[in-house]
Amino acid sequence: MKSLADELFSDFREHSVSEFFRRNAAMLGYTGKIRSLTTIVHEGVTNAIDAAEEAGILPKITVMIKRVNDEPEHFRIIIEDNASGIPEQYLPDVFGKMLAGTKLHRAMQQRGQQGIGISGCVMFGQITSGKPATVVTSTGKGEAVRVDVMIDVDKNQGKIINKEKFKENWRGTRVEIEAKEVVYMRSRYGPFNYLRMTAIANPHARITFVEPDGTLTIFENATDKIPERPKPMPLHPWGIMSDDLLILAKRTKARTISGLLSTELSRVSKAKADEVCRLANVSPEKKPSELTWEEAEKIISAFKQVKLLAPPTSGLRPIGAAELENGMRQILNPEFVYTLTRPPKVYRGGLPFIVEVGIAYGGNAGKTLESRGENEGAEGEAGMDLIRFANRAPLIFDQGGCAITAAARSIDWRRYGVDINNAPLTLFVNISSAYVPYTSAGKQSIADEPEIVNEIRTAIMEAARELKKFLYRRLRAKERQERAGIFEKFLPVVARKAARLAGVEEPDIKPLLKKIAGVDHD
Amino acid sequence: MKSLADELFSDFREHSVSEFFRRNAAMLGYTGKIRSLTTIVHEGVTNAIDAAEEAGILPKITVMIKRVNDEPEHFRIIIEDNASGIPEQYLPDVFGKMLAGTKLHRAMQQRGQQGIGISGCVMFGQITSGKPATVVTSTGKGEAVRVDVMIDVDKNQGKIINKEKFKENWRGTRVEIEAKEVVYMRSRYGPFNYLRMTAIANPHARITFVEPDGTLTIFENATDKIPERPKPMPLHPWGIMSDDLLILAKRTKARTISGLLSTELSRVSKAKADEVCRLANVSPEKKPSELTWEEAEKIISAFKQVKLLAPPTSGLRPIGAAELENGMRQILNPEFVYTLTRPPKVYRGGLPFIVEVGIAYGGNAGKTLESRGENEGAEGEAGMDLIRFANRAPLIFDQGGCAITAAARSIDWRRYGVDINNAPLTLFVNISSAYVPYTSAGKQSIADEPEIVNEIRTAIMEAARELKKFLYRRLRAKERQERAGIFEKFLPVVARKAARLAGVEEPDIKPLLKKIAGVDHD
Repeated sequence: MKSLADELFSDFREHSVSEFFRRNAAMLGYTGKIRSLTTIVHEGVTNAIDAAEEAGILPKITVMIKRVNDEPEHFRIIIEDNASGIPEQYLPDVFGKMLAGTKLHRAMQQRGQQGIGISGCVMFGQITSGKPATVVTSTGKGEAVRVDVMIDVDKNQGKIINKEKFKENWRGTRVEIEAKEVVYMRSRYGPFNYLRMTAIANPHARITFVEPDGTLTIFENATDKIPERPKPMPLHPWGIMSDDLLILAKRTKARTISGLLSTELSRVSKAKADEVCRLANVSPEKKPSELTWEEAEKIISAFKQVKLLAPPTSGLRPIGAAELENGMRQILNPEFVYTLTRPPKVYRGGLPFIVEVGIAYGGNAGKTLESRGENEGAEGEAGMDLIRFANRAPLIFDQGGCAITAAARSIDWRRYGVDINNAPLTLFVNISSAYVPYTSAGKQSIADEPEIVNEIRTAIMEAARELKKFLYRRLRAKERQERAGIFEKFLPVVARKAARLAGVEEPDIKPLLKKIAGVDHD
Repeated sequence: MKSLADELFSDFREHSVSEFFRRNAAMLGYTGKIRSLTTIVHEGVTNAIDAAEEAGILPKITVMIKRVNDEPEHFRIIIEDNASGIPEQYLPDVFGKMLAGTKLHRAMQQRGQQGIGISGCVMFGQITSGKPATVVTSTGKGEAVRVDVMIDVDKNQGKIINKEKFKENWRGTRVEIEAKEVVYMRSRYGPFNYLRMTAIANPHARITFVEPDGTLTIFENATDKIPERPKPMPLHPWGIMSDDLLILAKRTKARTISGLLSTELSRVSKAKADEVCRLANVSPEKKPSELTWEEAEKIISAFKQVKLLAPPTSGLRPIGAAELENGMRQILNPEFVYTLTRPPKVYRGGLPFIVEVGIAYGGNAGKTLESRGENEGAEGEAGMDLIRFANRAPLIFDQGGCAITAAARSIDWRRYGVDINNAPLTLFVNISSAYVPYTSAGKQSIADEPEIVNEIRTAIMEAARELKKFLYRRLRAKERQERAGIFEKFLPVVARKAARLAGVEEPDIKPLLKKIAGVDHD
C-alpha cells in the first residue's frame, strides 16, 4: 500500500532553469511594460560593449526599436555590434541556454557576469510574441550566418529554427527580438535615457539609436582610446572562503597544494605558499584533490597571519577621470564638471573595487533637464540627478535599496552650498569590480557593503568640495559684476561733474572701470 | 587558423543552477549575518508547515538553534515537523537539487513555490561550514532513516554521505543545518520575531522554539481547526498568455483543443470551449500538440469576448477573520482587535487573490512592544508596526519595495485619529494566492500590481474605520469617567450642605452617582 508520503511525492519533478525564469521573469527585470523594454536594450547593449572590448575594438553599437503592425505594445528591438562575431556552433547555447557562457567562471571585470542576460531576452520575446530571436553574425571572413533561435524551456536548450549562410564583408553580431506587452516611452526609465547614461559612462562607445517614430540620435564617442582588454584576476587569499579554495582545488591543474596556492591565487609566491602550508600544518606536496575542509579552513586562517601584498587591481578598468569628464561634457554640456577616480580599495577583506565620481553643474545637468525631449508622460522633477553605474552599465531601477543611493543621501549637501531639490546637478557614481555585489538577478542595485558605502561617500565629498569652490567663485564673480555695474553707471557722471567743478578736462575712466570689473579686491 | 572569435569562445561552458546560486546567494536571502540565519529558519519552517497542511495534519514545529563549539558565528539549526515524512528515494533531490519539487508545476496556494528554498539552506550550510545537512525522516511505519546530504554544485545533484536506518515510532522530518558566518539576535530581523509573526498568521500551528542560550518559548496554537488541504486550481482563461496555453497544450493528456480548454482551464465547459474555438476559427478537434502560436493568440483573445464565471477561489486558503483574531489576541494581547477577510479579487485579468487585514491596538501591539524581550542590539522604535505576509509566511526584509508597504503608507492615518509614529498599533496584512508576484527569489517583497495595492488599501481603510470607532468610544468613556469623578467628589458635599440648609435628612445619592457614571447622556 502506498503511504501518504508516497502519494504526496508522486509528482515530484525536476524543472529547468529556463522554466524557473519563465515563471519568474520579474527576477530578471521583466516587470512593467516600460521596464521590460529597457531590460532588453540593457542586456543587448551590455553584451555588445563587452564583446567589442574583449576583442579590443572601439564599440560602435546600433539600437533600433521598431513598432510591429502598428500595434501599440508590439515591438522589434534590434541591437548590432562591431565585435568579433560568434562562431556558429556556439549560437544555440549563447542565445538559447541559460547559465552558459565564457564569463561565469573567469574573475574578470565585465558588465555581464551571469550567463542569463541575452537568453533572458530571447525567452521574454518568445513568451510574449511567440517569435524566435533572429541572430546574424560574422567572424569577419567574408561569410555571415543568420539563425532563428528559440529556447526549449523544458530542456533549457537553444533550438535553431532556420539557418541561412550568405556572403558578407562585415564583422559583428546583430540580434533581433520581437516582443509584445512592452511600451516605448522617453521617460527616465525608458531606453533613450538608458542609452544616454551608457554614453556618459562609455565615452569610447559610439551609440546610434533609432526610435520607433524614426528619430535618429547619435551619441558620438568622446574619445578614441580603447580601454584595455579585460584581464582575468586570480582571487586574493583574503577574499575567499574555505569553500572557494576547495572548488579551486577540484578544478586546478596544479599537482600539489603548494602549486594550487601559488598558481590559482594572486600575490602568493611559492615560498609564501609553503609558509602558509607550514603554518596550517598541511603538507605542501599533498594532492589538491585530497584537500579536506578542515585543511582548507586552516589554510584560509593561516593566510591571515602572513604578510601579503594587497590584491592586484591591474584587472580593474575604471573609466578614468579625463574620459569621464569628456563623456559628461559631451552629453550634459555643463558649466562646471569635476571628475575623480579613487585609488583601488577592497571589501570583505580581499575583493578589489574602484569608485569613480563625477559632478556636473548647469547646462543640461540635473533632473529637470535629464529628461529633455521626453514625452508628456515624463516626470518633471527638479534638483539633483543621481546616476548610478556598475562596471559602466547604468543602474536605473531599484534605486531605493542601492548602496550608491544610501551614500549620496547620507551627505549633508547644505554644507557644500547645494540645495539638492533645486540645483541643476548631475551626480555620477560608477563602481568597477570583478565582483559587484548585486542584490538581485536584475542587477539594478548594489548591496550595502560598508567599505563600498564609505568609499562612495568619501569620493562624493571630494567632488562636492570642488563644486563648493566653483559655486563660491561663481557667487563672487556675480557680486563683482553687480558692483562693476554700479560703478559703470555712476563713475562717468561723478568724473564729469568733478572735472567740471575742478575746471579740468574730463579724465579717461575706462581703464579704471576695467580694473574694477576684472579684479577682485577682497 | 583560429579566428579571434574562436579564441574568445574557447572556454564557453555551461554552469549548473547550484553553481549560479552559490555565487549569488544574496538572491536567495543570504545577505548579512542576522538575515542569513533567519532565512534558514524561514525556509525550514515554510516547508514544515506546508508539509503538515498538505498531509492534513495540525502542524507542530520545533525550531532549535544551538551554538557550535562556543564560537560566536557558528550554529546548528534544527527544524522538526510532524508531517508525512519523505520517502527515502526522494531525499537527495529534495535537499540536494535545486529546482526540483512537487510544487513548481501545480497551481496551488502554498508558502513555497520555487523548489530552491531548502536546498538553498543545505548549500549555505555547506559553503560556510563545510558540513552536510542531516535529515531524519519517517513516514510512520516504525522505521526512520537518517542521511547526511551535500550538494554536488557542479552537477546540481544531492549526494548522500551517510545513511542509517533505525526503528522509531514517530512520523515527520527533522532537518539539521550547520552554518558559520551567521549571528543570533532577538532583533526585528531575527528568528524570534520571525517565528512570532508566523504564529500570528498560523494560529493552527504550534511552534516550539529553543534559543542558543536555552530559553524555551512555545507559541501555542490558538485554534485546533486544520486548514483545508490545498487544492490545485486550474488557470482561468483571463489570467493566461498564449505561451501558457501552448505549454499546457504540450503537457496535457487531452486529445483535442476543445478537450484541452475544458480540462486544463477553469470555468470552461465543453460548450464554452467549442464556442471559443469557433470564434477563434480553430478546429476544436485539432490535436493540442499541433496548436500554433497564432491559434493560441486567437483563442486567448476569443476568451475575452465570451462570458465566463470569475476565476474560482475555492483553492485559496485565507486565515479567516476569526482565526486571525485568535492569533492576534494570543500573541499581542491587545485592548482592541479588528480583523477582516475580503472577498476574492483578481489581478492581471485572471489571477485570484484574497487580502486579509488585522489591526490591533494597545497591549503588546506596536513597534515598541514588538521587540519585547529583545537583546540590547534591538531598535527601540515606537508607533505602528506593519507586519506583512504572503500565504501566511512573514515577509520581514525588503520592506521598502513592497506593495503592502506602499498601500499602508498611502493612507491618511490622521483621518482615523491615529498618530502612526506613536500609537501602540500593529497592522497585519496577508495576501493569499497561488501566484504571489514576488519581486525576487528571496520572496520578501510583493510587486505593486495596481489591483493588489488598491485591494490592500480598501481593506486597511475598512479596519481603520473600526479602529476609529473604538478610539472614539474609548475617548468618550474616559471623558465620562472624568465627569463621574467630579460628581462623585462634589455631589455628596452639595447634598449634605443642601440637606442641612433645608433642614431635611441627607438623601441617598448613590443611585444617582451610579447613573451618571454608567450612562452617557449626550
